[in-house]
Amino acid sequence: MPGIIKERLFTPGPTPLLLEAQVQTLTATLHHRTEAFRQLMRESLDNLKYFFNTQNDVLIFTSSGTGAMEGAVTNLLSPGERVLVGTAGKFGERWLDLARVYGLEAVKVEASYGNTLNIEEMKRKLESEGPFRAVFVQATETSTGVSHDVKALGALVRELPDTCLVVDGITGLGTTELLPDEWGLDVVIGGSQKALMIPPGLAFASVSEKAWKLMAKSRLPRYYFDFSKERKNLAKGEASYTPATTLVVSLHGALRYIRQLGRENLISNAALLAEATRAAAQAQGLGLFAKGSPANAVTAICAPEGMDSGAIVKEMRVRFGAIIANGQGTMKGHIFRLAHLGYYDVADLFAVIAALEVVLKKLGHRVELGSGVRAAQEVYLQHHS
Amino acid sequence: MPGIIKERLFTPGPTPLLLEAQVQTLTATLHHRTEAFRQLMRESLDNLKYFFNTQNDVLIFTSSGTGAMEGAVTNLLSPGERVLVGTAGKFGERWLDLARVYGLEAVKVEASYGNTLNIEEMKRKLESEGPFRAVFVQATETSTGVSHDVKALGALVRELPDTCLVVDGITGLGTTELLPDEWGLDVVIGGSQKALMIPPGLAFASVSEKAWKLMAKSRLPRYYFDFSKERKNLAKGEASYTPATTLVVSLHGALRYIRQLGRENLISNAALLAEATRAAAQAQGLGLFAKGSPANAVTAICAPEGMDSGAIVKEMRVRFGAIIANGQGTMKGHIFRLAHLGYYDVADLFAVIAALEVVLKKLGHRVELGSGVRAAQEVYLQHHS
Repeated sequence: MPGIIKERLFTPGPTPLLLEAQVQTLTATLHHRTEAFRQLMRESLDNLKYFFNTQNDVLIFTSSGTGAMEGAVTNLLSPGERVLVGTAGKFGERWLDLARVYGLEAVKVEASYGNTLNIEEMKRKLESEGPFRAVFVQATETSTGVSHDVKALGALVRELPDTCLVVDGITGLGTTELLPDEWGLDVVIGGSQKALMIPPGLAFASVSEKAWKLMAKSRLPRYYFDFSKERKNLAKGEASYTPATTLVVSLHGALRYIRQLGRENLISNAALLAEATRAAAQAQGLGLFAKGSPANAVTAICAPEGMDSGAIVKEMRVRFGAIIANGQGTMKGHIFRLAHLGYYDVADLFAVIAALEVVLKKLGHRVELGSGVRAAQEVYLQHHS
Repeated sequence: MPGIIKERLFTPGPTPLLLEAQVQTLTATLHHRTEAFRQLMRESLDNLKYFFNTQNDVLIFTSSGTGAMEGAVTNLLSPGERVLVGTAGKFGERWLDLARVYGLEAVKVEASYGNTLNIEEMKRKLESEGPFRAVFVQATETSTGVSHDVKALGALVRELPDTCLVVDGITGLGTTELLPDEWGLDVVIGGSQKALMIPPGLAFASVSEKAWKLMAKSRLPRYYFDFSKERKNLAKGEASYTPATTLVVSLHGALRYIRQLGRENLISNAALLAEATRAAAQAQGLGLFAKGSPANAVTAICAPEGMDSGAIVKEMRVRFGAIIANGQGTMKGHIFRLAHLGYYDVADLFAVIAALEVVLKKLGHRVELGSGVRAAQEVYLQHHS
């Protein structure tokens, strides 16, 4: 029986758009060399500091988050320098790829998929295999739904005057408490299509004073992602090259919404949805892929024994218009992922959990209808008087 | 704990908007005396016939549905004429108000709130207290969630050459099978903010040949709602007076969506959501207000003994952003209403049922969490292989 099916994103980026912010693009004055636009940029930069929870400079680039990751590498390092990379999934591996492309000597600390980085091991490497110019990690590894203890890592790296800690916070920002200034996170990378609730196309990087000092000495080639040039121009409210003007307008609107809601509330919203999703999945007889330190950004759930997670992804889309993510790489077919980052609310959660229950049942998994929703409702009630 | 709360309409009008149709208003050429606009009007009129399921003329007015109801009265009748009104709620009573204002002699057949009209009683009145120039009813009475057997009524009235049957289909269209031509529904009234998925501001009336003939003799005063004048102008793709141009653009887009989806599928979508809502409410230990013939358009649910339905309405809004409707008139405080007409899907239903469960529990009703959702899921599964 065909009926109305609304498409709904539950992927860890792109995420549902804040329509109020999108609508503003229709009426904004959009030439990027006007005072009106500079004003918009300055306000956005100011609100980005609030979102990043930092007093450091925050840079804006028209690119995906990967562009700013590359920029962190090319702006901090010189050919042949040594870096420490903590990797626990597809996004950790991206740091290794970048190090390889730019001729850096990468030392790797690896956690198997589903596990969090062993900070003690990072400490041992820092002590025994250094000196390192930079340490690269994720705040949350989106491919496995695991978060890393970047606070503990920060405490180690801040003791090393010539080493910077670079954190990919693309899905960590707005879902996880991060204190770049107190914790010593020298560079934090963000992307627009995540907790910021706007479309893909903008990347962000916060840069500490320590990082600026080390950047002054680095010799890797860079042009578009030249952090120091961008800092100079952004001080005047300008981007070095034509920025994605409508996305800046969306960003401005979304940041205003986030300031009203409160950064802490945005984070606790994701935390609640993640906790309720974990409870629901377990009530539905499903395993969680993260063995510990599950991320608030996204929950990776194991498909039942013998069931292809791709079938779940497909049925969710076809039956309920719910777009969820399959596993990546070797995890494909084994896990699926539900995101909580950004513009999601409890009603969204109830809908997707109820839909998942129906899909699991149709695919032959023994699940009590309503059981996952009940678990999610109970988590909601524990947090709301 | 404050978090993200998205506002969602679950009211029986206005209903959720089809965003694709709204967006079209931004780029359309909008002067109403242009060929482009006339083309839009002609296509919309054609698609309205599809939506109404009729070969009769369908008229468009810039007004609420009540305006077209008034037009049906003033175009069909002459002072002092006798009309039969079937009433079972607040909207039935509106026909009585209109008859009084225009000095008509109204004979009333009344069903108490929550009951459907007794067609046998209508038949007896038609036979014993006539002749009547017109019979007025609702297809579905939105205030109580009851539908009426307009097919049976049509079979009676079509035997009377000088009597027209006027059906308020404002919430019946797109939620209930209506065959105006086969059943002899001479005038059917519609409104834009219902199953058509667009904002309030447009009203519609289909008019049969029989009705046009009787209208030629009617002498009540009318100007803005002059059906015959409107028919003449619409034949040229024009409205008599400046139409709500952006709403016509939205209408055009929404009707195209409905044609793609299929009228029957739009109706069965509402039927499924209504059936699942009834099952869910009963599983949650709630009574249904409609004693029989429940409407697909909207489900009226009794608040638990001793609980003010206004508290449910408020908690749904505050906790989950879900806007539901209280009872009207004497039903206020005793019932609440969940709508199914138009742009709603199964995921919307899961969300609102799960939210309702939480609210009922918080307000002290003994309800098993997940039980209503399970009942709704089971109805979904019965209808979807």
